[in-house]
Amino acid sequence: MTKNDHTPLLDSVNDPAALRRLSPQQLRQVAEELRAETIAAAAKTGGHFGAGLGVIELTVALHYVFNTPKDRLIWDVSHQTYPHKILTGRRDRIRQIRQRDGLYGFTKRSESEYDPFGAAHSSTSISAGLGMAVARDMKQEDNHVVCVIGDGAMSAGMAYEAMNNAGALDTRLIVVLNDNGMSIAPAVGALTNYLSWLVSSRSFLSLRDIAKQLAMKFPRTLRTAAQRADEYARGMLTGGTLFEELGFYYVGPIDGHNIDTLVPILQNVRDAEQLGPVLVHVVTEKGKGHPFAKPDREKYHAVSKFDPVTREMAKSVSNAPTYTSVFAKALIAHGEKDDKIVGITAAMPSGTGLDKFAERFPTRMFDVGIAEQHAVTFAAGLAVEGFKPFCAIYSTFLQRAYDQVVHDVALQRLPVRFAIDRAGLVGQDGATHAGSFDIGYLSCLPDFVVMAAADEAELVHMVATAVAIDDRPSAFRYPRGEGVGVDMPEEGVPLEIGRGRILREGGKIALLSFGARLQECLKAADQLQSLGLPATVADARFAKPLDEDLVRRLVHGHEVLVTVEEGAIGGFGTQVLHYLARANLFNSGCHVRTIYLPDRFVSHATPKEQYEDAGLTEKSIVAEVLAALGDPTRSLDFKTLA
Amino acid sequence: MTKNDHTPLLDSVNDPAALRRLSPQQLRQVAEELRAETIAAAAKTGGHFGAGLGVIELTVALHYVFNTPKDRLIWDVSHQTYPHKILTGRRDRIRQIRQRDGLYGFTKRSESEYDPFGAAHSSTSISAGLGMAVARDMKQEDNHVVCVIGDGAMSAGMAYEAMNNAGALDTRLIVVLNDNGMSIAPAVGALTNYLSWLVSSRSFLSLRDIAKQLAMKFPRTLRTAAQRADEYARGMLTGGTLFEELGFYYVGPIDGHNIDTLVPILQNVRDAEQLGPVLVHVVTEKGKGHPFAKPDREKYHAVSKFDPVTREMAKSVSNAPTYTSVFAKALIAHGEKDDKIVGITAAMPSGTGLDKFAERFPTRMFDVGIAEQHAVTFAAGLAVEGFKPFCAIYSTFLQRAYDQVVHDVALQRLPVRFAIDRAGLVGQDGATHAGSFDIGYLSCLPDFVVMAAADEAELVHMVATAVAIDDRPSAFRYPRGEGVGVDMPEEGVPLEIGRGRILREGGKIALLSFGARLQECLKAADQLQSLGLPATVADARFAKPLDEDLVRRLVHGHEVLVTVEEGAIGGFGTQVLHYLARANLFNSGCHVRTIYLPDRFVSHATPKEQYEDAGLTEKSIVAEVLAALGDPTRSLDFKTLA
Repeated sequence: MTKNDHTPLLDSVNDPAALRRLSPQQLRQVAEELRAETIAAAAKTGGHFGAGLGVIELTVALHYVFNTPKDRLIWDVSHQTYPHKILTGRRDRIRQIRQRDGLYGFTKRSESEYDPFGAAHSSTSISAGLGMAVARDMKQEDNHVVCVIGDGAMSAGMAYEAMNNAGALDTRLIVVLNDNGMSIAPAVGALTNYLSWLVSSRSFLSLRDIAKQLAMKFPRTLRTAAQRADEYARGMLTGGTLFEELGFYYVGPIDGHNIDTLVPILQNVRDAEQLGPVLVHVVTEKGKGHPFAKPDREKYHAVSKFDPVTREMAKSVSNAPTYTSVFAKALIAHGEKDDKIVGITAAMPSGTGLDKFAERFPTRMFDVGIAEQHAVTFAAGLAVEGFKPFCAIYSTFLQRAYDQVVHDVALQRLPVRFAIDRAGLVGQDGATHAGSFDIGYLSCLPDFVVMAAADEAELVHMVATAVAIDDRPSAFRYPRGEGVGVDMPEEGVPLEIGRGRILREGGKIALLSFGARLQECLKAADQLQSLGLPATVADARFAKPLDEDLVRRLVHGHEVLVTVEEGAIGGFGTQVLHYLARANLFNSGCHVRTIYLPDRFVSHATPKEQYEDAGLTEKSIVAEVLAALGDPTRSLDFKTLA
Repeated sequence: MTKNDHTPLLDSVNDPAALRRLSPQQLRQVAEELRAETIAAAAKTGGHFGAGLGVIELTVALHYVFNTPKDRLIWDVSHQTYPHKILTGRRDRIRQIRQRDGLYGFTKRSESEYDPFGAAHSSTSISAGLGMAVARDMKQEDNHVVCVIGDGAMSAGMAYEAMNNAGALDTRLIVVLNDNGMSIAPAVGALTNYLSWLVSSRSFLSLRDIAKQLAMKFPRTLRTAAQRADEYARGMLTGGTLFEELGFYYVGPIDGHNIDTLVPILQNVRDAEQLGPVLVHVVTEKGKGHPFAKPDREKYHAVSKFDPVTREMAKSVSNAPTYTSVFAKALIAHGEKDDKIVGITAAMPSGTGLDKFAERFPTRMFDVGIAEQHAVTFAAGLAVEGFKPFCAIYSTFLQRAYDQVVHDVALQRLPVRFAIDRAGLVGQDGATHAGSFDIGYLSCLPDFVVMAAADEAELVHMVATAVAIDDRPSAFRYPRGEGVGVDMPEEGVPLEIGRGRILREGGKIALLSFGARLQECLKAADQLQSLGLPATVADARFAKPLDEDLVRRLVHGHEVLVTVEEGAIGGFGTQVLHYLARANLFNSGCHVRTIYLPDRFVSHATPKEQYEDAGLTEKSIVAEVLAALGDPTRSLDFKTLA
């Protein structure tokens, strides 16, 4: 039989057009080979691949049925696109995925015409797809637009907004709901319960069912209220789903690993002419065929490199704890003493360390799902009632809740504490996940306290500081990954608000760091010392309120002051410069330079490579100092030596 | 009969406790008097009062049934709270609402203990309420939490996120859906269609129905999947609503103007002990009892002062067109020549002027409802397909879509154009509606073009510039209200990107404006001239890319450079300061000062009063120049003179 034939069919599939020349009977073999290839690639590179394994058959079926790239295929989040990348001409580069100059771990427009929309943050696909569908209608073209979105991503507000709009516009749009009962962490929320019920109360759709179901389709172009009402009534009678109530035609549930059913059902949906928006409910198993055992499902989300035979994961060599675990431990310690401390996360319990807090205090941690907006205002509600909410959200995802931070927290001066993990550059997840903007978008808010931890011991003190700040909002940011290995304090001690510290006294150079680049500043100071330029090194600790005394002293006592931060323009250096302008310290004779993230998106690579690329290392700091001293020769010499 | 008795009952109702001492039969009279009082107050002050008139009976019923302020009553958006304010001890100040030092036009925590959560932006109430409900449970207290949310606000993603979480947490929470079939503009979206169907397909709930419906309530504390499935199945059988699918117990629809039904139904809901989250669907008519005729419903949202007898609205005296109308006219002119230009708004068609664009090009304007996140990514999808989307969103509401601006637009360098109305201080809508942060949160994004219009003629050119910028995102901001009355160009001409202009050459002082404070700079220059200090006045036009040549020339040729902008720290002045640091222009001898919004939220007042309060007027600019010149005496003299 074809399906047992082990001629590598995949070798002949250089693009989806080649796939479409195969017979339907050959697709199972393609899927098997694609699964093996995906596992082999992931063993080499690590990364998000459990999600891809869950959609092997779906990926094959979609490219077989739809005429990509003319038909637009938009993957939500798109960490599940390793198989998609293999099938769309990128197989030769799949083993360099997530590495510097290699493929990106998510879809990317500049990488392939088969990636019509880049993703990485969740729940954007229906909005983007609806835009493309409306554009198609205006251009009077006839391509299909297909969005593939997981059940976790479907629980986010943005997906609902898009469905609400799609249901009203009644444009032809196909949304494939990839329901695997979990997003990154097990999905939470009423929608998840509802989907479980939907699946458990119905049998998988068969070929015969789909013919019957689609025969019942009705013209949806006439839009009077009476007709709408009639449509809804029909939906109700036939067992209306939430999606039908939002104006979608519902097809499902479908076994997402049965390619023999998937293909004809998708063909039927494709060819049904009078349908408006359609939701195809596909049930899959995340990590299907995964070589590891199943228990620790959240670990599937992204893995290190591993040995495909022994299944041994590559170990990290550092002994320093991660910032995430240090945060969790510190918060738990405070939680023991203060039962008003509660944790809130938006679908990132293990990523933020709040899973540990939940183990210790099960009733005091709230994972609200992929719902950052709700998370922040929910925390505000808790603060109103006297609780001390710690809202732990990655810097890049907190962007989703910016208005809630401004309008619900800052404007009301509510003491919500923001624990901002993954601040700065984050490595292989690249530009979409970089935490670049938080210093700026928080420091402009009245009454906010904005801190950054220079190392893991500082983080412990900043958790204590945030516990103590009970009359206004506060935030502390810290990078992804391991700390620097400093001695850890027994317990956190609240810092004096708005007060930095001087670590080393030097000569005419001063380096003022905000955050974990402090280590690079110390190394730069060593280099400068060897050049006969002893440098003062200070840690600002607070971007807001700024330690103005410290800044003034540094400016008065030095010829050069360089600020350093892991963030974009508008953040810490900005606070320093505006203070200097306000205090008439512009013409003090001190040359002030600000080092921050460059004005471009920094591509994926290791964090170290990214920081070199971004000019935030020892070497760049020294070069900046020398340039400020107006000694390009010495700067050049140094560069040649280094 | 009591209800026709015209003794002013309202005079005896100084607080909700007094209301609760009345008999149910007296409530109708209270409601009548409350409606009259609301209209009388609005006639005096203008403002949002159509919404309040729609909830007169609901407001009376809620305060009668619930034990406020111990029971938390949270009004979504809260522009409908004029009657609530009258009933909660603020009647004596209701005629100063929205005026300087008067009551705020929305709920405000610092104003009353009856306002447990401040609002103004839409769709926050369920999240905040859920936080308070969870807090109550943790504190083992027994107060109720009631959120009142409109059907328009319910269509926003944030409300869905909160319902999804509430349905899963199964906490006791009462959500009153105030369904008036319209938000600010007529509500759009599938949810609206669905609610219409729901109301049209059922009769209003009577007292007998509610007894029957609540008798069917079931224990919801046991949470196994099987039981959940059973619950959903019941919901289906009894005609399950979208809300039941999200885990809410649905009660409705109820006639929101029949106080004799409202009160006992709310009492039943209050007393039903085993319920988790409940949704009470109340149908009301916005502007009920409004003295104006009905046709122009969007105008109801907020009105000017009017004469209660003649119904004549107070007219504005200026002859200059509003920025909004100038934007609309300019966009229509380009739309005539370029059919790829499309407009997108999030429930603000008339507020943004896109209603005019839609009149001319009905198929090219998309009002997606209160859904800013979706609006931006939908626009990104249109840009992918070669359209030129103009996404018109107020500055303060664009905060809702910040992640989409970063992740879907900027990262992919898609040419979405952002027309940012209501930039800067906005007057009587106060701090919640101020457009303070956009210059900063956009200028930090790579490749973004960020412009601000100095006057209405500049706005016309900036629309033309945005049309022309086809390879990257762009934004232009402009204030609320009328232009300055300058001559208008025949047609817009694209500006040179990143190039400012000098309006007046002076002596040792330079004023560099970004945006509509240019007029104040010109007036300040006049004042300075009279003090013997002729000033150069320049308009930067672009915060990004910055006109570095212009900044360098100003610094080299002047003793003082003052930048002025209607935005918070992190915006235009920040770009200037960082450039100066980068270019080694810190010790040039020129004193640089940056004027921006103060580091506090600016309270409601007239825009003029707000700008005085914020120090962004002619007077403050002159004072800043004199201070920079190091001449406090002269500064003082000037202040004394002025």
